[in-house]
Amino acid sequence: MSEAQIIDFMRSAGAGRDDVTVGIGDDAAVVEVPAGRRLVVCVDALLADVHFPASTEAHDLGWRSLAVNLSDLAAMGAEPAWATLVLSLPEANEAWIKAFARGFSELARHYDVALIGGDTVRGPLAVTVQLLGLAAGTDCMLRSGARRGDDVWVSGSVGDAAAGLALLKGKIKADKASTEFLCRRFLRPTARVELGRQLVGIVNATIDVSDGLYTDAARLAKASNVGMILNMEDVPISPALAAVMPRNEALQMAASGGDDYELLFAASAKKRSEIQAAAASLNMSCSRIGTVTDGETVTCVLESEPWMPSHTGYEHFVAGGDH
Amino acid sequence: MSEAQIIDFMRSAGAGRDDVTVGIGDDAAVVEVPAGRRLVVCVDALLADVHFPASTEAHDLGWRSLAVNLSDLAAMGAEPAWATLVLSLPEANEAWIKAFARGFSELARHYDVALIGGDTVRGPLAVTVQLLGLAAGTDCMLRSGARRGDDVWVSGSVGDAAAGLALLKGKIKADKASTEFLCRRFLRPTARVELGRQLVGIVNATIDVSDGLYTDAARLAKASNVGMILNMEDVPISPALAAVMPRNEALQMAASGGDDYELLFAASAKKRSEIQAAAASLNMSCSRIGTVTDGETVTCVLESEPWMPSHTGYEHFVAGGDH
Repeated sequence: MSEAQIIDFMRSAGAGRDDVTVGIGDDAAVVEVPAGRRLVVCVDALLADVHFPASTEAHDLGWRSLAVNLSDLAAMGAEPAWATLVLSLPEANEAWIKAFARGFSELARHYDVALIGGDTVRGPLAVTVQLLGLAAGTDCMLRSGARRGDDVWVSGSVGDAAAGLALLKGKIKADKASTEFLCRRFLRPTARVELGRQLVGIVNATIDVSDGLYTDAARLAKASNVGMILNMEDVPISPALAAVMPRNEALQMAASGGDDYELLFAASAKKRSEIQAAAASLNMSCSRIGTVTDGETVTCVLESEPWMPSHTGYEHFVAGGDH
Repeated sequence: MSEAQIIDFMRSAGAGRDDVTVGIGDDAAVVEVPAGRRLVVCVDALLADVHFPASTEAHDLGWRSLAVNLSDLAAMGAEPAWATLVLSLPEANEAWIKAFARGFSELARHYDVALIGGDTVRGPLAVTVQLLGLAAGTDCMLRSGARRGDDVWVSGSVGDAAAGLALLKGKIKADKASTEFLCRRFLRPTARVELGRQLVGIVNATIDVSDGLYTDAARLAKASNVGMILNMEDVPISPALAAVMPRNEALQMAASGGDDYELLFAASAKKRSEIQAAAASLNMSCSRIGTVTDGETVTCVLESEPWMPSHTGYEHFVAGGDH
């Protein structure tokens, strides 16, 4: 496939949207932003053997490259709309590109995301997606609004994706059903877009859990200039993860593992029933796992004893990152 | 430098803009798009030893990575506003990163572009910039509006950047002054942003010259469903390029070389004085180099004889690309 053929092929990826005036094929794309809606912008680069095993199926990678960006918009409570895609490929393998586009499109169409631009280069396998979305009116959920006394919540379950990655790398073993569930949680993360949109106006601060519960909780706390106590016994561990490893290891996966793309958020205790109702309406769970405190440290407690995460988040440019 | 330090450092790159509600540091950025202005979006990835020599100075690379995107917006007649930046770096060298940010910032501040998001990964040297801009009202210049009988124009001079790249690679030699001028045309291209904005409503079709005059003329012709005759004797060759190589080689550089980031456009003959006035107001030149025809081929003519470009544009995924 030539570069032009790849770009032509990518034109059919993603959703069709009436607000795209000019799509792929000109010097730039042109879209219409509704009056009164703010524009929300995020970008994530995924590099083979850093962010995903190079052996990852193209179909999964297409899905995942969009999902990690959807998760950023979810944390802002924004509605996804338009994406651009930069593919760095060692070779132009038609079957690979078609499978990638299928995975990307599946998720893009689900969320009505149009692919409006892109670039392809010959290089090491890497995918960069930039996603543009629309805020709910002028309101956005930020990391910085948590207040002392707020509840700390997390959606879904955490630790699954890190266990899935360990399974994909052959570092641990599990039964077939658990393996399937956990690997899928890494390869096909579910961005909490609908939940994020429902939480706007209810919660005080939100972040997506991309680098581990502990690291992302610390980021939210820092942005809000508060501390936090996390009760590890309340951290939601999936049955599959619980089946695969002892409880403390599962909690370590949850605290330090990353790639879950759940939402961590802080909200007033008065909002508990609203949050539970939002989660129930989406047929999912949200768990209350801690409390916002004074100070600036995130303290983990397990059954009234201090508990320490083994790692505190992935760091690209410091020796010892194992992500 | 840690990833967080790099991102903190990048916060100070680019212009400050009042319409940035949330900048770098949350899950996503939030900006305000003025009512009635369409959003224009482009993205370009630059990979070491594909798009620039790996030995390129960080300062130049910072400038160039934004300039190539500014050129895409220029071709749409859009006003640049916000950018995101993805840096893939083999190592987190503080001096390199600071120099890169300086180069990026110089150009970003000149065009009032805020850097609102980004990502850094450890990998082969590559820079991906996505640029967001605002269309002039609901009008954009596209590749697709050229009509039979239109004049074909190009801004500035072409071929300089390809000669600059050949000089940087040691493939050709030149005197000091010509070398400086030509290398700078490759390393620090001038995106024709102001010209593009002035041409809105005057011209019928525009493209930026990134892959060589011939290839980009053919793209514009294809998008407009027309043919084109280019009179090579009218193609603007800079004195520096003319000093460095014989005329026919200079024309080959112009036709096939790429990286000039000039604007190629088609306009009615009635618009000649308006176009010349726009160029004069910007203290630059625009040259009339051809005519839009029926058919679908771009034909080059030199002194009434057919003239053939030696290459017809860079192709990443076909053997023989030498860009």
